[in-house]
Amino acid sequence: MEFDLAQHPHRRFNQLTGEWLLVSPHRSLRPWQGQQEKPEADTRPPYDPGCYLCPGNERAGGIQNPPYTGTFVFENDFAALQPEVPEGTLDKQGLLRAEAESGRCRVICFSPRHDLTLPEMALADIRGVIDVWEAEYLRLGVDPHINYVQIFENKGTMMGCSNPHPHGQIWAQRTVPGEPAKETVQQLAYFEQHGRTLLTDYLEVELQEQKRIVFENAHFVVLVPFWAVWPFETLLLPRRAVASIEQLDDAEKDAFAEALQQLTIRYDNLFQMSFPYSAGLHQRPTDGLPHHEWHLHMHFYPPLLRSATVRKFMVGYEMLGDPQRDITPEWAAEKLRGLPTVHYKQAGS
Amino acid sequence: MEFDLAQHPHRRFNQLTGEWLLVSPHRSLRPWQGQQEKPEADTRPPYDPGCYLCPGNERAGGIQNPPYTGTFVFENDFAALQPEVPEGTLDKQGLLRAEAESGRCRVICFSPRHDLTLPEMALADIRGVIDVWEAEYLRLGVDPHINYVQIFENKGTMMGCSNPHPHGQIWAQRTVPGEPAKETVQQLAYFEQHGRTLLTDYLEVELQEQKRIVFENAHFVVLVPFWAVWPFETLLLPRRAVASIEQLDDAEKDAFAEALQQLTIRYDNLFQMSFPYSAGLHQRPTDGLPHHEWHLHMHFYPPLLRSATVRKFMVGYEMLGDPQRDITPEWAAEKLRGLPTVHYKQAGS
Ligand SMILES: O=P(O)(O)O[C@H]1O[C@H](CO)[C@@H](O)[C@H](O)[C@H]1O
Ligand SMILES: O=P(O)(O)O[C@H]1O[C@H](CO)[C@@H](O)[C@H](O)[C@H]1O
Repeated sequence: MEFDLAQHPHRRFNQLTGEWLLVSPHRSLRPWQGQQEKPEADTRPPYDPGCYLCPGNERAGGIQNPPYTGTFVFENDFAALQPEVPEGTLDKQGLLRAEAESGRCRVICFSPRHDLTLPEMALADIRGVIDVWEAEYLRLGVDPHINYVQIFENKGTMMGCSNPHPHGQIWAQRTVPGEPAKETVQQLAYFEQHGRTLLTDYLEVELQEQKRIVFENAHFVVLVPFWAVWPFETLLLPRRAVASIEQLDDAEKDAFAEALQQLTIRYDNLFQMSFPYSAGLHQRPTDGLPHHEWHLHMHFYPPLLRSATVRKFMVGYEMLGDPQRDITPEWAAEKLRGLPTVHYKQAGS
Repeated sequence: MEFDLAQHPHRRFNQLTGEWLLVSPHRSLRPWQGQQEKPEADTRPPYDPGCYLCPGNERAGGIQNPPYTGTFVFENDFAALQPEVPEGTLDKQGLLRAEAESGRCRVICFSPRHDLTLPEMALADIRGVIDVWEAEYLRLGVDPHINYVQIFENKGTMMGCSNPHPHGQIWAQRTVPGEPAKETVQQLAYFEQHGRTLLTDYLEVELQEQKRIVFENAHFVVLVPFWAVWPFETLLLPRRAVASIEQLDDAEKDAFAEALQQLTIRYDNLFQMSFPYSAGLHQRPTDGLPHHEWHLHMHFYPPLLRSATVRKFMVGYEMLGDPQRDITPEWAAEKLRGLPTVHYKQAGS
């Protein structure tokens, strides 16, 4: 018998973090008797008078949203990071170590329409979201006290999202958090050795193999990374090695919008539901250095495994040992690739 | 204003993994409008004819459980790891890397009683569970193909547990997974520098400060680690630096059982419910080396934050940046320390 990635338990190496995961392809057939998620009601009005993100409505502390018509960005009313924190560190025999952290948290409404999500928005409006990401990245990043800007979206109650109005968040802070810090180490080591970005060469291998490609256009590729942890995890990346979003040209930003639209439509079509995920951009720290090793990309981490109600639990072994998955990345990519490119809600009309 | 861990956003350093987390104490007051968990029904019969873990019942594939009266261990019918896997590696330009992984997965029933959980079991029966952990660790560990034995429990549907019958799991494998590998690096560096285990010295600081101690007896201490990620995360550790479970003497194993009982009773009493968590032992890899740097300990990772129905979501920023918490470890420890030491179900009787 020959070792076969589609059949035999194995470990895969994550190039971006330098960590391993366990893949158990044979286990995808086990019966599921555990928790089932409650499908979310998916009929929302275009405007909800009780929603604190809708145009004109009141937020926490009595602040009123403007009657916005495109995107709308504001300071998070319950920010995890604050701009003014007294400097300070704690170091007790090197064993208890802490340091003050400063930063800012912002919220981005993607659309005034309460009933939409990215896959249901017009291409031009998705492009509008990308333009706000760029503007915020630049605006926050110039502050010398902000060395990393994390742009992300939690979609669906399953991902801790407390309001279905289409929106994302930005947490920008003094230090570079662990995940992008690991990615910097890995990308820098590769760049110093090869003179090209890690993701340039990785993308080339993926385009040759084609097995894990979900979607491609002239400037962007969506794929299930070889080391994907979540069942339908994907990586969205530009063909050209740019370190951060403002380095994308106009055509590239249009292609980015199309890739986002095509991926999220497929996600919704997978189980014919508004597909939950956490997603976010990883890009160059805003510490003023050029970071030629950095290759901008976007991660999508969706929790669902088999249906709208059965999720993958990252618990027990995963918390104490290594991340683990059952279905292979190749199988997931094939599944996503084969889905209709028109949103199921619009397909009938 | 002075920097204050109880008030100001800050980062803390995890000594065991070498990673940081973000603490936002001021944020614990934000309102929660997101997903609420469905409280689990907590009235189970002592024997359930439909449960595949109860004594005498049939499991997958028609295997029948013996009429066991204490603990009962068997090979997982849907094992993520298999003992016989064809050797093999994949290495495509260093960019796609995988290797075959072999191992075994076992299930441990803690009790024949379908309606019990650890905190409701008699002390002698909890000690029985510890003895099985030891026996399995030794039995699996002598196999030269098994270099790490991960013992753990997923409790509650919220933690992906698919059967409420009290049970845990063991995944034992050829390689050392990421979490214990990181802990080896950190503990080894400390041991080489100081000639004592990292956790010996850490425990000394904690015992001086007392702020994060939940429970202590002659041989074991339960505390909320300074770097805890989950709201009510705890660390259970022996005062004496032993590398693995078979090095505990009889009195220490009794003390371990009491610590387990006292901690899990407090957990159940916190929200007056059967408290969900993933928990597991971290100990010396079974690679035949003495690993004097290793200090056996047990982690408890419970998901709940504010009540039986509001959990902490590790999503978005946490997946893409760093783990984040709102309530401080000191606050959580004080809360747990103050809870009654008799299980709420037994308190009335
Ligand atoms: O083996 P079980 O209990 O069916 O499954 C549970 O525990 C495993 C090990 O932590 C996880 O991989 C699964 O996602 C979880 O649902
Ligand atoms: O800020 P929100 O949407 O209220 O909260 C959500 O996203 C945050 C950032 O990923 C997480 O820390 C919270 O646990 C989650 O519930």
